[in-house]
Amino acid sequence: MKAEILSVLKRDGGYVSGEELSRRLGVSRTAIWKNINALRDDGYVIASVTNKGYRLEKCADLLDADLIRKGLETSIVGTRLDVMKSVDSTNEEIKRRAALGEKSGLIVAAERQTGGKGRLGRTWSSDSGGIYFTVLIRPDLPPSDIASITLAAGYGVCLAIREYTGLDARIKWPNDVIIGNKKVCGILTEMAAQTDRLDYVAIGIGINVNHEEFPDEIKNKATSLLIELGRKTDRNEFFRCVIRQLDLVLSSFIVSLSVDEMNDFKKLCATVGRKVSVQRGGLLIEGKAVDITPGGELVILSDSGTEYTINSGEVTVQGIY
Amino acid sequence: MKAEILSVLKRDGGYVSGEELSRRLGVSRTAIWKNINALRDDGYVIASVTNKGYRLEKCADLLDADLIRKGLETSIVGTRLDVMKSVDSTNEEIKRRAALGEKSGLIVAAERQTGGKGRLGRTWSSDSGGIYFTVLIRPDLPPSDIASITLAAGYGVCLAIREYTGLDARIKWPNDVIIGNKKVCGILTEMAAQTDRLDYVAIGIGINVNHEEFPDEIKNKATSLLIELGRKTDRNEFFRCVIRQLDLVLSSFIVSLSVDEMNDFKKLCATVGRKVSVQRGGLLIEGKAVDITPGGELVILSDSGTEYTINSGEVTVQGIY
Repeated sequence: MKAEILSVLKRDGGYVSGEELSRRLGVSRTAIWKNINALRDDGYVIASVTNKGYRLEKCADLLDADLIRKGLETSIVGTRLDVMKSVDSTNEEIKRRAALGEKSGLIVAAERQTGGKGRLGRTWSSDSGGIYFTVLIRPDLPPSDIASITLAAGYGVCLAIREYTGLDARIKWPNDVIIGNKKVCGILTEMAAQTDRLDYVAIGIGINVNHEEFPDEIKNKATSLLIELGRKTDRNEFFRCVIRQLDLVLSSFIVSLSVDEMNDFKKLCATVGRKVSVQRGGLLIEGKAVDITPGGELVILSDSGTEYTINSGEVTVQGIY
Repeated sequence: MKAEILSVLKRDGGYVSGEELSRRLGVSRTAIWKNINALRDDGYVIASVTNKGYRLEKCADLLDADLIRKGLETSIVGTRLDVMKSVDSTNEEIKRRAALGEKSGLIVAAERQTGGKGRLGRTWSSDSGGIYFTVLIRPDLPPSDIASITLAAGYGVCLAIREYTGLDARIKWPNDVIIGNKKVCGILTEMAAQTDRLDYVAIGIGINVNHEEFPDEIKNKATSLLIELGRKTDRNEFFRCVIRQLDLVLSSFIVSLSVDEMNDFKKLCATVGRKVSVQRGGLLIEGKAVDITPGGELVILSDSGTEYTINSGEVTVQGIY
């Protein structure tokens, strides 16, 4: 009911009387009044004037599908968008919907994840102030492309942060976005596939937007747009910008990146050019990250002069958390 | 009710009176009588003698979880086994159960698949007389190992056919088992994974066992154990042998194959050593298959002298359907 009332108030822009709302939505005026108060509790500012009715003055600081979609024209990513108040994990929700046949392009976002997941089975804290969402795509690609898809998504988030805030966001291979030497975004990509063909890919993305601070244990590793900018970001507008960039990057990725795009992408990879160490099997490789292959692997030139191509594993980068 | 009656008759071995069955199962004697007749319609031979009752003389020619499990001791594969009369696809069923948290080792088999699937979106016909099942495993491996898992499963089926029938079964890379130059088994492996870690693998296996003939369109490409042997195979016993071999092969695969095992495996690969052609991108590669890499890829030495490593794609092998 709250959503329907909001929808009428947003559509009309001006004052709508309680009587008209009650008639349009087929409920009592008392029900309207109760829901208006509930919306105010959510943070919406709604003016009420005798003989005129209600008018929406200011939206709550909540993700709002209508606001996000405003003026958004994308070819695949975000052609459908669903904002949930709370969910176990947006990746799990997308996987459930994909299993039921949901098509490419759907985004599920949530204000709160009760069981947010990170890589390697870690938990991902989903405090309020962030943007947590998962994109469903069904590209006609082999499963070995999943690492590149993750990198492409990270590149899209980088571009959106750079465009919307001017901050120097960069990719930390394989699945983080950093500002300075701290993490501002993490990506968890999951897939369902046959041996040589993807069924679907769920790209889960969490961005720290309006977090004022972080728990002690991650304080030195994590940052947010608010901490970097010193002011709040309109999450709905910024989210729209992220979706637009993801759509551009993922669409061109799916039809394969041009050499120019690949070079642009590498320029934003904070890992390339730095000293790194990686545990691989029983072996500790120390050296310098020198390149990213077209397949999304990290090329390391070890201190002993051997070149290694790494497609996974925990990489420690000197100078980054 | 039929299953419960069968279970009592199997457990007792001797005669069980209708009165006792009715008492044990809490239904009327008429219900018992109706179900005994239904079991006879299914192919079970059940003797009935006045004053003694019913005795199971011979099981129907149906897959029967109790019979399959008899004496089966495996470490992972088949530790749980569920035989369904009919299902859309055993792969889909395993994927549904895996999503609900089902553990490694479960096998779901079905007499009939109403929507059996083959590779590249093809349908797989599941006529009666075959064994159609899917194994769920959750190995701690990267998704890039899925091709090797498929090959290992094919190797296990080969070994079971060789052991149980003496027939010269061989692997046709990447996912078929052949006898002579005809297909006797197809494998469709599907996975759910994060970028660097498998969540689960569903190995779907269809074996042509007691098929007397095949439809015209696949007659020249398909064979069955019955066609090769000239007699019927006890599907429950043979299935037990397949499960035992799969368990051995997949368990040692998961802790990585030894060099000896890898060589044994290659000896049974019908593709290696033959002239092959493969379409890759826009390119037609013609040459000789010379090796399988530890990662399960096919190595082709082209007629022009270039070596190619192929991890998917449609390979045509000279002399095999």
